[in-house]
Amino acid sequence: MSVAKAGEFGLIARVTARLPAGSGTLLGPGDDAAVVRAADGRVVASTDVLVEGRHFRRDWCSAQDVGHRAAAANLADIAAMGATPTALLVALCVPADLDARWAEELADGLGEEAAVVGAAVVGGDMSGSPTLTIAVTALGDLAGRAPVVRTGARPGDVVAMCGRVGYAAAGYTVLSRGFRTPKVLVDAYRRPQVQYDAGPEAAELCATSMIDVSDGLLADVGHVAKGSGVAVDLRRDAFEVPRQMRDAAYALGVDPYTWVLAGGEDHALVATFPEGISLPPRWRVVGAVREGSGVTVDGRPFKGPTGWQHF
Amino acid sequence: MSVAKAGEFGLIARVTARLPAGSGTLLGPGDDAAVVRAADGRVVASTDVLVEGRHFRRDWCSAQDVGHRAAAANLADIAAMGATPTALLVALCVPADLDARWAEELADGLGEEAAVVGAAVVGGDMSGSPTLTIAVTALGDLAGRAPVVRTGARPGDVVAMCGRVGYAAAGYTVLSRGFRTPKVLVDAYRRPQVQYDAGPEAAELCATSMIDVSDGLLADVGHVAKGSGVAVDLRRDAFEVPRQMRDAAYALGVDPYTWVLAGGEDHALVATFPEGISLPPRWRVVGAVREGSGVTVDGRPFKGPTGWQHF
Repeated sequence: MSVAKAGEFGLIARVTARLPAGSGTLLGPGDDAAVVRAADGRVVASTDVLVEGRHFRRDWCSAQDVGHRAAAANLADIAAMGATPTALLVALCVPADLDARWAEELADGLGEEAAVVGAAVVGGDMSGSPTLTIAVTALGDLAGRAPVVRTGARPGDVVAMCGRVGYAAAGYTVLSRGFRTPKVLVDAYRRPQVQYDAGPEAAELCATSMIDVSDGLLADVGHVAKGSGVAVDLRRDAFEVPRQMRDAAYALGVDPYTWVLAGGEDHALVATFPEGISLPPRWRVVGAVREGSGVTVDGRPFKGPTGWQHF
Repeated sequence: MSVAKAGEFGLIARVTARLPAGSGTLLGPGDDAAVVRAADGRVVASTDVLVEGRHFRRDWCSAQDVGHRAAAANLADIAAMGATPTALLVALCVPADLDARWAEELADGLGEEAAVVGAAVVGGDMSGSPTLTIAVTALGDLAGRAPVVRTGARPGDVVAMCGRVGYAAAGYTVLSRGFRTPKVLVDAYRRPQVQYDAGPEAAELCATSMIDVSDGLLADVGHVAKGSGVAVDLRRDAFEVPRQMRDAAYALGVDPYTWVLAGGEDHALVATFPEGISLPPRWRVVGAVREGSGVTVDGRPFKGPTGWQHF
């Protein structure tokens, strides 16, 4: 059944029936607005939008995958502030001939990814549109901690990363060349694996700045460097290229470090910490903060693309 | 300069420079997420999306008008819960050839409308898209009050309204027939005049249910009737048709009550209150809650369109 035939209220009913409530959901979908717990007395909020043909393709990703990706991009932004996500709101614009099942499966993906962190979809809006578009807003709770911003890195800090880089970009390249394997790369593109709880963990460890890698490591670390008025030098040998990525890069004629250093959408968390800190093993030291400006790799500018262009 | 030439980060810088902070803004645009005061320990959140060609036309409304309309639709949803809006987040999807000034003036409109209630734009996202799309999320604060939901109307309650109905729909009809006057109607379509503070006021007055009129009075009161398991009867003589609307209706061959009873987007607040309550003058009694189901006008079903179709 097309969304036009289901109608807005019919489609909303079908979609919301599939969405579980979260522990922070005080009033879920169905009213003028939702009500979400914000025990801390502050709420962290971020919005990200995905446009078909630009951020996803329906022949590359299932609706459920798109739900996971859209949720992950937003939940990672909350984690990168040192907060725990509590809720998602979703604005969905759909072509009239879209199968209503696509919207239902998108909701499944959004709800599943939110449930990973105990959050839930609490509200949204739907409209017809020639362009399939998904705008997600995530809310989060700081539990009394100060937010970890982009502007706090200081010369002498270490740069550490939790999560993967290059996988989603490699999966994107694989798909764009018409292949469907290696599965580990394609799956990484379809459903990012984000360690959301590493965000609050970094805040507890007194991270001086933090960001999630959505546009590419060099580009995103560049935001921290610019925001903090410092230089960041990354160590290339801190980034091991796994065998399947190396093999795919060789087969496709790509420098795998382009994926690792400039590929976005894995949503690894990158944070700076005071020198000498002892970090849990999932946080890997990948560089250092210096006086100056800009981002270098082993002391030199990186040659090649550095991040995602939005227009 | 086109948005493509300005670039995402250039455009974000241009836009955010124009946005004032609000009293609840603890961390505004520029980081992974914003931080907003939520003193109450709960946050009210709602999302609404506007799609060009469906919810607005660039030849009918300035960018600033569209900003006012997009903000008003969301702020009214927060008010309809009995809450005071604190913040907006905006996802903006723009064609590459759009003039960057359009985005800047949109931001002006969003910021101005938010400022009416002391709220501010605290964050957002931008993307290229073939379809100009604006998804806005509004946050709000209940100040210790219970949210006023759609499900609390009880037989015997009075139905009261604060604000205008029919104006925006009349303005839309005027514009769609190629006219630009009467100004009062066209302006109402371009920039809704919403009494946001009537929302918290109704909550203080122990409103049993509340909604804002975004789809049309009959349709929206229908949501309350359905949600509460009651019938609502509206009194036609409670809705005075102002002279300019009557004249425009006559000239265009329209029954003005179609605008008044089925026209949306003025975002009047409609609430139900216990019988015998003494209401401030801006709340006009327009009907009564009965046992049963559905919405009637003077005891009879309304003949004609009853609300906006979304697909």
